[in-house]
Amino acid sequence: MKIIIAGAGAMGSRFGLMLHQAGNEVVLIDGWQEHIDLIKEHGLRANFNGEEIAEKIVIYHQNELETLNFSADLVILFTKAMQLDAMMQSIKSMVGDQTKVLCLLNGIGHEDVIKQYVPLSNILLGNTMWTAGLEGPGKAKLFGNGTIDLQNLGTEGKSSANEVIEVLNEAKLNARYSDNILSSIYKKACVNGTMNGLCTILDSNMASFGETSVADAIVESIVAEFAQVAAYEKAELNVPEVLAQIKTCYNRETIGLHHPSMYQDLIINNRLTEIDYINGAIVRKGREYGIETPYCQFLTQLVHGKEEILGAK
Amino acid sequence: MKIIIAGAGAMGSRFGLMLHQAGNEVVLIDGWQEHIDLIKEHGLRANFNGEEIAEKIVIYHQNELETLNFSADLVILFTKAMQLDAMMQSIKSMVGDQTKVLCLLNGIGHEDVIKQYVPLSNILLGNTMWTAGLEGPGKAKLFGNGTIDLQNLGTEGKSSANEVIEVLNEAKLNARYSDNILSSIYKKACVNGTMNGLCTILDSNMASFGETSVADAIVESIVAEFAQVAAYEKAELNVPEVLAQIKTCYNRETIGLHHPSMYQDLIINNRLTEIDYINGAIVRKGREYGIETPYCQFLTQLVHGKEEILGAK
Repeated sequence: MKIIIAGAGAMGSRFGLMLHQAGNEVVLIDGWQEHIDLIKEHGLRANFNGEEIAEKIVIYHQNELETLNFSADLVILFTKAMQLDAMMQSIKSMVGDQTKVLCLLNGIGHEDVIKQYVPLSNILLGNTMWTAGLEGPGKAKLFGNGTIDLQNLGTEGKSSANEVIEVLNEAKLNARYSDNILSSIYKKACVNGTMNGLCTILDSNMASFGETSVADAIVESIVAEFAQVAAYEKAELNVPEVLAQIKTCYNRETIGLHHPSMYQDLIINNRLTEIDYINGAIVRKGREYGIETPYCQFLTQLVHGKEEILGAK
Repeated sequence: MKIIIAGAGAMGSRFGLMLHQAGNEVVLIDGWQEHIDLIKEHGLRANFNGEEIAEKIVIYHQNELETLNFSADLVILFTKAMQLDAMMQSIKSMVGDQTKVLCLLNGIGHEDVIKQYVPLSNILLGNTMWTAGLEGPGKAKLFGNGTIDLQNLGTEGKSSANEVIEVLNEAKLNARYSDNILSSIYKKACVNGTMNGLCTILDSNMASFGETSVADAIVESIVAEFAQVAAYEKAELNVPEVLAQIKTCYNRETIGLHHPSMYQDLIINNRLTEIDYINGAIVRKGREYGIETPYCQFLTQLVHGKEEILGAK
């Protein structure tokens, strides 16, 4: 299969590498010049479960695609949320009538962007538990195992979904069909919509936040807003289950002492955050649906305020 | 007049000093042993508008009052909000039927505590624009000018208010009668209820916060909650005027580069904040009056979370 990985950061590198190793014709597309140059020179390097590897995989900068002239069978979207629209614009000549587009971005509401470029029946929404890191430009750090759940967004498209699942599974990516992907996406967004913004604003790891006397009340207020918006979209959330999953983040023995990704983006690396695609998406949808979302709104505002105070870019 | 200054920190020291210099019999009461010991040894020292002075004024620890046996004519309350109840308990034997009690604490709702110890007709609520600092234990730093507005809390008590105003004015404290002290208190609380919590949570001075694109929206949401609660108590707030006053805090030429007092308490000195008596009081009152106050509630929770994460005491 001819597969475009649109956004070849840590996760895109993992997927590109594993799909390439399974014999697919993979094209990586990214916007980070130094990363692209190193992959062109040395191949995509990775520490892959402890083994140092390098694979020659085609990579392009998203601004040098004019000369390319093919339709992909599958596009897997792995950009940062705020880069999605520009990426769709860059790759649109390679998205043909038959091209399936699988969105694996964090956050919610990305289908509203993708729909402007891709017919509904070709859009697949997914949720992945795989993890990945970058050691630096051109080199990934890939440990552990994961899964992918996915579903066709349109009413037609289940057979396309199953074809994509087969390709992913040949690459050992553990994909499976979900009858309710939107609920999974909302559930994951609840974890991100609490841990990310709160630990960023409170300058805290997840355990230290979780151990405060106010953690439960704040988290419950935020999750209640997510659940109301999700319910309006017929994606029912099991709130006690979501709250229990969030609490697993507080465990000092496992991930509790880590700072969530938004903290690393903003506080460590001084980068703009994805808050508009997590809590901010709930605010936008809430406004549309007539649902009050003051906690998500205040948290979104505070994170934007922090970005500006720190001069994040 | 026999005047007890209950809470002899920076502001209490200013009032004690000026009332003592005007010939009143002033007794300072405080809970900070080192401060008390130094005042007992050297008198209350101050840099008073540039002049180094020291005045012998009686001072007691609030836990050594059992042996005292007098009723004060006037008690001026200047404790931190969370120390008010314990202070009222400590001084109650000196609060007689004729003792006027003037509350000049920051924040709102202190009358609910004072009412448990003092008849309504003897309670005066005030709001002061005087400022003061401490150079260290036993020594105040007193610059500039200020005013006091005050009013009797009960329907009776205007004549008591005027007597107290006269005593304060003999000490050049610029007191005047207010027909609507609750509005002034709420107005000041709006400034504290925005600048204090927000700059503390965002680790920012007032100018840097004020210059963010989210400042206006956040401040308007918080002030709207204060205004609804105030209106329920018939203390109408002129919202545009309050917002304009808050914006004066952003001015880099005047006070904008300063951090508000709550930031100094928590971030600099690792002390618990007065948030429960500012935004937290709005939450409590809102719950009682059936008014939604999500911004004040979330901000109160975030500040408490930050206190716990920092191990403030």
